[in-house]
Formats: sequence, structure tokens, C-alpha cells
Amino acid sequence: MLTLDRLNACAPDEFVRLLEGIYEHSPWVAEGACARRPFKSLAHLKRAMAEVVREAGRQRQLALIRAHPELAGKAAIAGELTAESTGEQSRAGLAHCTPEEFATLQRLNAEYNAKFGFPFILAVRGPRGTGLARQEIIATFERRLAHHPDVEFAEALRQIHRIAELRLNDKFGFAPREGEQVWDWAEQLAQHTDRGCEGTGQLTVTYLTEAHRACAQRLAHWMKADCGFDEVEIDAVGNVVGRYHASRPGAPRLLTGSHYDTVRNAGKYDGRLGIFVPMACVQALHRAGRRLPFGIEVVGFAEEEGQRYKATFLGSSALTGQFDSAWLDQADADGITMREAMRQAGLCLDDIPKLRRDPAHYLGFVEVHIEQGPVLHELDLPLGVVTSINGGVRYLGEVVGLASHAGTTPMDRRRDAACAVAELALYVERRAAADGDSVGTIGLLEVPHGSINVVPGRCRFSLDLRAPNDAQRDRLAQDVVAELARICERRGVQHRVEEAMRASAAPSAPAWQARWERAVEALGLPVHRLPSGAGHDAMKLHELMPQAMLFVRGGNGGISHNPLETITADDAQLAVSAFSHLLEQLAAEHA
Amino acid sequence: MLTLDRLNACAPDEFVRLLEGIYEHSPWVAEGACARRPFKSLAHLKRAMAEVVREAGRQRQLALIRAHPELAGKAAIAGELTAESTGEQSRAGLAHCTPEEFATLQRLNAEYNAKFGFPFILAVRGPRGTGLARQEIIATFERRLAHHPDVEFAEALRQIHRIAELRLNDKFGFAPREGEQVWDWAEQLAQHTDRGCEGTGQLTVTYLTEAHRACAQRLAHWMKADCGFDEVEIDAVGNVVGRYHASRPGAPRLLTGSHYDTVRNAGKYDGRLGIFVPMACVQALHRAGRRLPFGIEVVGFAEEEGQRYKATFLGSSALTGQFDSAWLDQADADGITMREAMRQAGLCLDDIPKLRRDPAHYLGFVEVHIEQGPVLHELDLPLGVVTSINGGVRYLGEVVGLASHAGTTPMDRRRDAACAVAELALYVERRAAADGDSVGTIGLLEVPHGSINVVPGRCRFSLDLRAPNDAQRDRLAQDVVAELARICERRGVQHRVEEAMRASAAPSAPAWQARWERAVEALGLPVHRLPSGAGHDAMKLHELMPQAMLFVRGGNGGISHNPLETITADDAQLAVSAFSHLLEQLAAEHA
Repeated sequence: MLTLDRLNACAPDEFVRLLEGIYEHSPWVAEGACARRPFKSLAHLKRAMAEVVREAGRQRQLALIRAHPELAGKAAIAGELTAESTGEQSRAGLAHCTPEEFATLQRLNAEYNAKFGFPFILAVRGPRGTGLARQEIIATFERRLAHHPDVEFAEALRQIHRIAELRLNDKFGFAPREGEQVWDWAEQLAQHTDRGCEGTGQLTVTYLTEAHRACAQRLAHWMKADCGFDEVEIDAVGNVVGRYHASRPGAPRLLTGSHYDTVRNAGKYDGRLGIFVPMACVQALHRAGRRLPFGIEVVGFAEEEGQRYKATFLGSSALTGQFDSAWLDQADADGITMREAMRQAGLCLDDIPKLRRDPAHYLGFVEVHIEQGPVLHELDLPLGVVTSINGGVRYLGEVVGLASHAGTTPMDRRRDAACAVAELALYVERRAAADGDSVGTIGLLEVPHGSINVVPGRCRFSLDLRAPNDAQRDRLAQDVVAELARICERRGVQHRVEEAMRASAAPSAPAWQARWERAVEALGLPVHRLPSGAGHDAMKLHELMPQAMLFVRGGNGGISHNPLETITADDAQLAVSAFSHLLEQLAAEHA
Repeated sequence: MLTLDRLNACAPDEFVRLLEGIYEHSPWVAEGACARRPFKSLAHLKRAMAEVVREAGRQRQLALIRAHPELAGKAAIAGELTAESTGEQSRAGLAHCTPEEFATLQRLNAEYNAKFGFPFILAVRGPRGTGLARQEIIATFERRLAHHPDVEFAEALRQIHRIAELRLNDKFGFAPREGEQVWDWAEQLAQHTDRGCEGTGQLTVTYLTEAHRACAQRLAHWMKADCGFDEVEIDAVGNVVGRYHASRPGAPRLLTGSHYDTVRNAGKYDGRLGIFVPMACVQALHRAGRRLPFGIEVVGFAEEEGQRYKATFLGSSALTGQFDSAWLDQADADGITMREAMRQAGLCLDDIPKLRRDPAHYLGFVEVHIEQGPVLHELDLPLGVVTSINGGVRYLGEVVGLASHAGTTPMDRRRDAACAVAELALYVERRAAADGDSVGTIGLLEVPHGSINVVPGRCRFSLDLRAPNDAQRDRLAQDVVAELARICERRGVQHRVEEAMRASAAPSAPAWQARWERAVEALGLPVHRLPSGAGHDAMKLHELMPQAMLFVRGGNGGISHNPLETITADDAQLAVSAFSHLLEQLAAEHA
């Protein structure tokens, strides 16, 4: 087995030889990485090699991609693969394709090569060394064939980094055990899905359905039986709460967790990752027989997504004393009120007010979450530190011009509603970009009842504007709305905008953000700070105590609220390690 | 009765006194017009007064608008209107409003004044001195209340010009008799509408329906019985053809006409005006017992709009020998083939090839048509001379980017399909405007399945590009398609565009365009040249002989393919006069 000590100490020639085959037929990657020694962790080495590729320029990157064999391609048939590739392709069962599957793969290989000019690359090895199913490989192949060439070029490089990661793990005899534990928990919890979704492969777990209550039951069981939490309960709104006691009674607690409900047709990690990661940490503490000078309280929030009832953040609202009793009278699509659903689940409504946490008993709140965006994925970074949960405001709007004949209305006599909105869209793009960390989106856009030969008389649109703090969000919104008025004034068209939603920003508490940053640094990884564009339970807890979040990279471009949402066991392992480091920092502070 | 001679000769004070009350409480309009003497026609005087207002600046224009009373307003109740207003409002039956109608008018007056800061002005007198129905007045009021203030300001001035025109007609004892005849024919023909539209007020006349055949019958009857055409027939495709013989046998003929079919829920003048105007001219020649040195052949084309069958320009195609026998097998929405419909109508399919005209027998083709656009309406010009029927090309397109989370995707990592199309829309606007007489329109625009919080991954759109000649159209199309490719390349999104239609331009024959220009000048009106953005039967005849078109101003902003399409009897009269002048020019040339 290879060790970091050996790699850090050996001669450059030896270094390159030791890392032979990590990047297929491309020793220049190891050569480049050699100059970056010493490495303080395996993650550091992986990152260094990825950086060499990132900085190599497009020509060398293309050569690297082209150095890879096709999946089940000619080289595989002729037995000309590297040892690594042979093992990987055979574990994915590609040697046992049916004739139809084989024909499909050959066709896809040909089409992919014709479109992109390089072979299709996919890390076919799943967690725990299992291979991806052939059907899954073919589905991924077809999906990626539709990509823009730039997107697919970047994706090919990321797959190569993932393959390198797995090969390095083998070489170092490293298995991300805690990450695999997280991955296993996620798989098992995902077996529970709402009625009508069973067997479809879809994951949907909405508030207090049978599947939802089964998830609560399993989480509670794992906390108690597998992780060694001292107290575990399902509270009056369905939150699963596990407490791991401090080394001394009466000590304050660290509050952490995330939600276990899902959107419809969801991924397996949104929310749940933030429950599993601290569970894995407590499990390790418990196994080591360790107590810290503070308690750890992990909450699996019952509801965050607002899918069955319009009561987003229900679970965390109960902890901040903001559970709205008017919610109880809401009925779901089947006419079942929340009150009925809670009674049926045996929840004790009268006890909801008691769920409010007294901040005096808590150090603060931290939350681990998948990024749900492309930033970390594109930067080849497994972890990111959240600076703020963005505040947002949404509008629905309409511009009304004059519908007129597309042939007979001269350009200087038009009142084109769609062109006014087009101008707005480009302004929003520029204005949000100028802030650096604001975002602005026109997600809904439509010329109602438009015709190919009619100048648009109406155009409907939405505006979604977000920024890391409320003042920045408000300046953005003010500028956008004012620009819309200016555009419409100049073009002689009318408009209306209606505010549809407004949410306050939740900037991270600086001391807590700094703890996450130190934890990431300690892993040998660069610290990347980014705002959270999506809302999280931490937004609610923010009103009660200091909070800060850690983001974990999502695969497939960072897609979320989608079955393609994914993480690697290696990244989950890094999240567990970062969380453990944060616990150690707090322990040192409170020693 | 006032005469032009008297007005042209009198002292300025007298001039202003003679025209008192033409522009309500605003003698400055007559004062300004006085300097523009002598007037060669009543139309010239009307135009001169309108020009004084056009050049007066916004403050005086606003004062002029505000000098008018409200409809059924306080001044009317108190008996404080000018004599002219009293007569007009009473003829419109406003004194006989029901209490509900009166209350509605008061509410509308208040809302209108609050929105625009001036009273609602409407020329309530219709052709032949009839008043608009009260319901029609209220409907117009409500429609105009929704306008942009600039649009409504211009509309108020145009209504004032129309009121002035009617008052001048009274003062001069002038009635536009031939224009009223055209207006009456249009009203009577509009009584025939396809099944399902009767009694709805909607006008729809599609190829060979019962209503369509009734229209042919009436046109043929009017040509023969009322106008004195020598030969009238309904030909093998349903065209109504009337011939007025020349003074000598074997002389060539002038070909003219337009279509009598309509779109669904159409106006009364699109197409039909171009049949009625030469009919009125022939009627006048016949009444005067005059023959010209050339024959006149007026064709009411049976089909131009392609509504029942996809066979646009069917009627004129038969004359150019391009009737496509494949059309015969097309079925309408009820499954009736064109062949069946034609047989049922007693049309003799075998004779269709004989309909082809030999250009040697014709001088050329002229067509009168409503503009179907806003240009003449906005310039306060009743007539315009067409320079070319624009060539066009249409595309359907889609941009494909990456759908992603509106909150979590930074601005510099987006592949927003809608923003790419927004950029295209603004480019099309600029690029077409740069030509001066090209037009470009994105009429269809949609983010399919968009969400308020998702960056658009797809955006569908249409492109309609037109120019007065094919080379200009092709340069425009080339630039637009190339710019789309550049935008998509820069933004890293994919796109496809598909050509959906391509039509050649039909520039007017210079000698024929010059005849129309001389005719307009002879009426004392300025010559305004403009391209036709819409297609017309003249486009087909263009392939066989020289052609040129005359446009007549449409009211209500020039709207067409809509029940709001309208013209005035005065404008129709000018069209008849211009056509007669063109006939006189040709007579002089062939004398």
C-alpha cells in the first residue's frame, strides 16, 4: 500500500511511477502534482492532481480525455485496456451485455464521438466498489449525448477525476467508511416513498404520510441503536430528535440537523445528508467512548419543503416558536387536514408550544447540506463554506403593448411587449452579475396567445431576485423595478408587477463560519466561500441563535430536486471529517 | 354653402370666421391653415388643418383636446355644448340613454379623465349621418380606457380630425357619395357569414361555404345590375369577374380587384374594398355613358386567406396558371375535400386551366387595399402608394441551455435559454430598424414548463422577417441567423432554427406606381410611399404583368383581421377618386 509519507519523500521519478495509471496514459498529471508536495491528506493529493489538469489548457485536457477507451469499445473487445480500465469495465458488467445492450452502446459510442470528438467517459464504479447497472450506464450515456459540447467536455474531466479518486483509494488502501455509512443510510431511507411512487424508482416523502413516518422510525432507530445517542424521540410535530450528552450535566448543546421530507420525485441527499453526517460523528464518538464538554442535539426536521401542506419550514418553525396554528386547518389534496394527519400519527398537538428552544441552552446551529448548485462541482471542490443564506423577493409581472400585424407595422411604430421584457431580462442578468453574489432570474416567460405574424401585445414574466443580505437584495429589486418602468416608459408600453414572496437573508455568524473554514483547511482542501441561493432550516434557526452551514458538492452539475441528485461516498466522508473537526474545535474552546 | 373659391379668396379674419367651430373652441387651427392657401380640394383643406394641429406641439394639442365636452357629460346636461356638439351627441342618441347607460358613461368619463387628464373624444357620427349605437360607443370607451396614454392622446387628436372632417362636409354641403356606396356594399356583403357565426356579429367567409357563394352571387349581381359591367361571370374557381368593354374591340384591358373571402372573425374591408372601389368607378363611367380606350376587368378573387384549405392565393393563382391540382384532395375540418366543395358549388374543374390570363391582353394589374397597418392612420393621411409587397421568411426555433436552480446557480455559471432569445429579440429589433423598411418580429415566445425559481433550460420562439426586396430580406435573415449562432456560441447554449415559410417580394412597377402617385397628388394630398408588409393578390399577378397597389388608411390604429377594422366613407371616396384619376391617366396615354 502506498502512503503519503512515501510520496512526500520520494524522488520525482519515483513519484510519477508510484502514481502511474491514476490518470490514464497521462504521466504529466503526476509530474505536475509532484511540484506541489508535501501533501497533508489524500484529499489534498487528489485536489492537487485535479488542479494540474485544470491548469493544463484545453489541448492537454482534450488529449487526456482522448487517452481513455470507449465503454465496451474496440479496445475492450481486443483486450487492449489498461489493467485499471479492464477491472472497472468488468465490474460494471460490461462484459456481460446482451447483444441489444452491446449494439446500443456501439451506436451511442459512434454518435457521441461524432458530436464531441472524444470518447464517452463515466466512472462506472459505485460506492463500496459496486458497479453501476448497465441500464443506468446507458441512460446516463443518452442523457449526456444531448449536452452542449462545453458542458460535456467539463463533465468528461470530472469523470476522469472521479476515476482517479477511486484508483487512488485502491492504491492507498483507503475506504471512506463513514462516507459509505452515510451513503448506505441514504439508500435505505430512500426505500420509503409515498403511495403511488413505490416501484417507480421515484422518491417522494411528504409530511406525515406512511413513508414519512417510516423514515422517522428508521432515523430514530439508527440514532439509538447504531449511533449511541442517549435520548431519541419523535417530537410533537414529527421531528426526530437525538441527544448525545455532554461530559458534564447542564452543559450547553450544539444544535444541528436538516430535514427528511422531500419534494416530489426527489433526490436522496437533499436535507437527509445533514442528519446523517452528525449521526456518523456521534457514532464515532460513541464507539470511542468519548464525551465532549457540550451536548450534541441532532434534529431530523419533519417538514421543510411545503409539499403536502403550504407550511414550509414547519419542523424548524416549531423549534423557534413560530408554528402557526392556522396551518392545522389546511387540507391536503385528498382533503385531509393537517390536524387530522397529526392526530392519526399520534402526535400530541398540545405539546407543540413546548418545542420552542431556549437559546441560552445552545452554543449555536450548524447544518450540512448538498449545495444544490453547480459551483463546487465545476470547481472540483468537495466542500464549500456558506457565507449567508440569501434573502429573496419574487414578482409576477406583465407588460402590455399593442398587438399588431408583424408585416405591416414598421419597427419605429411598434409597442412590442416581448421586446420590453427581453430588455428587462438582459438588464436583470447584468445587474445581478454586477453584485458578484446576487442572482436574478426570469423563469416564467410567455407571450400569451402569440402568433408567428403578430407583434406581441402582451408578455407575462416572473422575477426571482436574491442576495446575501436584505439591503443588497432590496437595492437589486429597486433597480430592476425602476429599470422596468424606464424601459416601459421609453417604449410606450404599460406594465404591472406584483410581489409574490419576500424572505430575509440569514448571514452566517462569523465565528461559526470561521470554524467551518478551519475544518476545511485541516482536511488539506482550499476554502471556498459561497452564499446559499436556496432556503434551509438554518434560515429559521437563525432567528434564535448563531448559525453557519457547510455545503457538499453534488454530482451531475449539482442538480437537485431531481432523481439525478448525487454525491460520492468520498465527499460524504470529507463532510463527516469536517464536522468532526468542528466538534474538536468546540471541544478545545470549551475545555 | 361654403366654397373653396370663397375660402381661397377671402380676408384672413373672414377665413377664420368661416371655419369657426370646425375645431372646437380653437380658432388657432383655422388661423394656421389660412397661411397654407390656396386649397385645391376639400381634402387639401382638411389635411392643412390637420397639419396645423400636428405641428402645434403637445401643450396646444392638449388644450385642443380639453376644449371638447364629455360625452353625455355635465355640459351636455346643462345645455352648454356648441351647436355642432349638441347635434352630434343628439344624433348618437345620447340624450336617450337608459339610466344604466347614463351611469356607465359617467363612470367611464370619470375613470378616463383620471387616467388621461382629458375628456374622451369620439366621432359619434357614422357614414350617411347615422349615429353610432350607444352600445358601440360604450364598448369603444371601455376599450380605449385600457390604452397607453400616448396612444390615447394620438387617438383623441384623430377623432378630432374626423369630427372636423364631418363638420367641414356639412359646411361645404359635401357628401362622399361614392365612398358611401362602397361603405354600403361592404355592410351588405358582411351580412353573409359562415354557419355558426350568424347573429354573433362575427364575420367569417371561407372558400365555397354557403355564405361565400352568396357573396359571389351578390357581387355578380351588383356588377351587372348596379354598375353596368358588360360581362359578369363566376369562373371555374369561384372568382367573380366583371368586364367593362373598351371603346373599341380588341383593346387591352386593365386588370384589377382583390379577394372577397375573409379570415375568421374578420373586418369588412380587407380584400373587398379593392373590388368595390373599381366597381364604383365603372358605375360612374356607365352612368356617364363613357367608354375608355381600354377595357376594365374587375376580379373578386374567391380565395386569398387560406382558411378553409391550405391554398392561400387560390383565386389569383388560377389567373397565373398556378392552380395546384394537389389542392383538390385537401380536406377541410369537416372532411370535405376541395374537389367535393367545388363540385357541390357547380364549378367546372376542367375549365380551371383556361383561367390563365395572357399578359399580352392586359395593360397591368392594380389593387386597392386597406393598409392593415398603423402608418397612414398615425400620419393622418387617407392614402398611401405601395412601393413593394415585402418578401418574407419565417423560422421556428428553440434554444436549449441548462435548467438550473434560480437561487443556487451564480450568474456567471448559467446557460439561460431565455436570455439568449432575449438578446436575439433586441438584435432583430435593431437590425430590422437599421434597414428603415425591413421588419422583424418574434411573435411566439415561450419557456416551456418554466418555473419562477428555475433558470430557463429551453426557450421556443418564432422569427418573421420581411423586406421590400428579396436581396434585402436575405441579408436580414442571414444576419439574424448568424447573430443567433454567435449569441448561442458565446453563451454556451445550443439552438436550432427551421425555415417555415419563404415568399418573394413583389416591387411595384415604376410606371404604375407613378400613376398612383400622380392620382394622389391630383387630390391635393401629399404622396406617402410605403411597402406592404402583408401579402396580397397583386403578389401573384406580379408574376404575369406589371402591378402597383394603393393603400387606404384603416381606423382604430390600422387594425385588421379583427372586427375593429374600419375605414371612413370619406377615405373610400378618396380611393374612388384616385382610381378614377388613374383611369383618366391611362385613357390619356392610350387616346
